[in-house]
Amino acid sequence: MGLDTDPAKIPAGISILDFNKAIIDTTRDVCVAYKPNIAFYECLGKEGWDILEKTVDYIGTEHLTIADAKRGDIGNTSGYYAKTFFDTYNFDSITVAPYMGSDSVKPFLQTDGKWAIILALTSNPGADDFELQQAGDERLFEKVLRTSSTWGTDENTMYVVGATRPEMLADVRKIVPNHFLLVPGVGAQGGSLADVAKYGMNKDCGLLVNASRSILYASNGKDFAEAAYKEAKKMQGEMAVLLVG
Amino acid sequence: MGLDTDPAKIPAGISILDFNKAIIDTTRDVCVAYKPNIAFYECLGKEGWDILEKTVDYIGTEHLTIADAKRGDIGNTSGYYAKTFFDTYNFDSITVAPYMGSDSVKPFLQTDGKWAIILALTSNPGADDFELQQAGDERLFEKVLRTSSTWGTDENTMYVVGATRPEMLADVRKIVPNHFLLVPGVGAQGGSLADVAKYGMNKDCGLLVNASRSILYASNGKDFAEAAYKEAKKMQGEMAVLLVG
Repeated sequence: MGLDTDPAKIPAGISILDFNKAIIDTTRDVCVAYKPNIAFYECLGKEGWDILEKTVDYIGTEHLTIADAKRGDIGNTSGYYAKTFFDTYNFDSITVAPYMGSDSVKPFLQTDGKWAIILALTSNPGADDFELQQAGDERLFEKVLRTSSTWGTDENTMYVVGATRPEMLADVRKIVPNHFLLVPGVGAQGGSLADVAKYGMNKDCGLLVNASRSILYASNGKDFAEAAYKEAKKMQGEMAVLLVG
Repeated sequence: MGLDTDPAKIPAGISILDFNKAIIDTTRDVCVAYKPNIAFYECLGKEGWDILEKTVDYIGTEHLTIADAKRGDIGNTSGYYAKTFFDTYNFDSITVAPYMGSDSVKPFLQTDGKWAIILALTSNPGADDFELQQAGDERLFEKVLRTSSTWGTDENTMYVVGATRPEMLADVRKIVPNHFLLVPGVGAQGGSLADVAKYGMNKDCGLLVNASRSILYASNGKDFAEAAYKEAKKMQGEMAVLLVG
C-alpha cells in the first residue's frame, strides 16, 4: 500500500497524518506492507518528517515498512542514509538506486532484519533510456540484477520491477528466481495484476505488489477511507485468486 | 566546499551549525560554491533539516548552493524532490541520479535559474560496476552524458565527474564540451587537481572542484576553522595557477 499522500489530492479539512491514519485503519487487514514515498514528506520540510515518523509509528510492527527513498551515494555516505531510514525512522526496508555500484548499495545490507530494495526495471517511461538499453550481452537492468545479487542474499535484498512491462518479469526471474520483487505500476500506471502474477510469481509468491494513487484517491469525498478499503479489498481478492492459481 | 559535517569528526563542544558557520566564515572568500551532502543532515532527523536550512541561509546569495542529494524518482515524484530542494530549502542546484531516465530528471530542469547536476562518472570504487561498463558502443557514463544532455541545456544541467579517474574527463569533454562539471574526489579521495584541470577544463574553466573532508577536518582542534582556511586557500592557489595555465 503506497502512502504517497499528496496534500493537493486529499479531501479538504483533513491533515495528512489523519488521512494516513484513516487509510492505515481501513487497509490494515488487506495489505502486507506500507510504502510511503519519501518525496511527498520531504517537500513539506520538518513537518513532513514529523508526519512520516508518526505514520511509521502508527503502522506498528505487523506490516513491512518500506521507505521509498531511492537513495544511494558513495560508501560512507550511503551508511548515513541507511542509518536515517533503519535507525532514525525505524523502517524495515529502503529502495536504493544502483547507478553508483557496490559500495553505494552494500551499506544498506549490513543490518540484520533490514532490506535493501534495489531499483532494477522501474515502471516509468524513462526506463527506456538506460535500464532497457543493451549493456554488454544483456540489458542494463539484467546486469544490475546479476551483479547486485552477489552483494547480498535473498534475505536482505529485493528488487523493484515495474508492472508496466510485465513480460519482463520472466526475464527478471531467470536471474533472481528467489528474491522478493516489489512491483509498482499496478493501478493508476496501468499494469495488470494477472500478468504480474503470470510472469513474476515464484513458489513462495515472491511478489510485493504496490498500488498507491488508485487506492488513496479512490474517492476525494468524506468516504475516502471506505472507498480506499473497497479498492484495496478488490485488489486483495484478485491476488488471492491468482495465488491459488 | 563540501559541507559533509560529521558529528563524530568535528571538535568536541561545538554544534554542527556553529561548525558550519565557522567553516563558511573562513572559506567564503576562497570558494565559489557550498555543497552540503544531505545524508549527513537527514540522518539527524528534524534537527538535521533545521541545521541544513540555517546553513543555507547563512551561506547567503553570493555563492552557488548545491544540495548533494542524488535524488530521482518517477516524473511526478521527482517534481516533489525538485520542490523540496529548490523551494523548501532554497538551493540553487541538486545532484540527480540518472538510472530511471528522462522523466526522473526533467522535473529538475523546469525552474529558471536552478540546476540539475546529473551523476555521470562518480568518484567511488563502485563506478566500475555499471558506470564504466560497456553500454552499446560506449560506456554507460558516456551514454548518460549523451542522452541526458539533450534533455536540457548547459545553462540548467551540469554533471558529476569524479577526480579519481581524471583521464576520463577528456572522454567526458568529447560529449559535453560546454557543460559545467562538478568534480568530487580531490583531497581525501586522492584525485589530482592538476590532472583534473589538464583533462577537464574548457575555455570558461567549466569546473567546480569539490573537496570536503580534507578541508573540514584539516584539524580537529580549536583551530579547525583556521586550518580549514589554510587548506582551502592552498587549493584555491593551486587552481589559480592552473587557470592561468
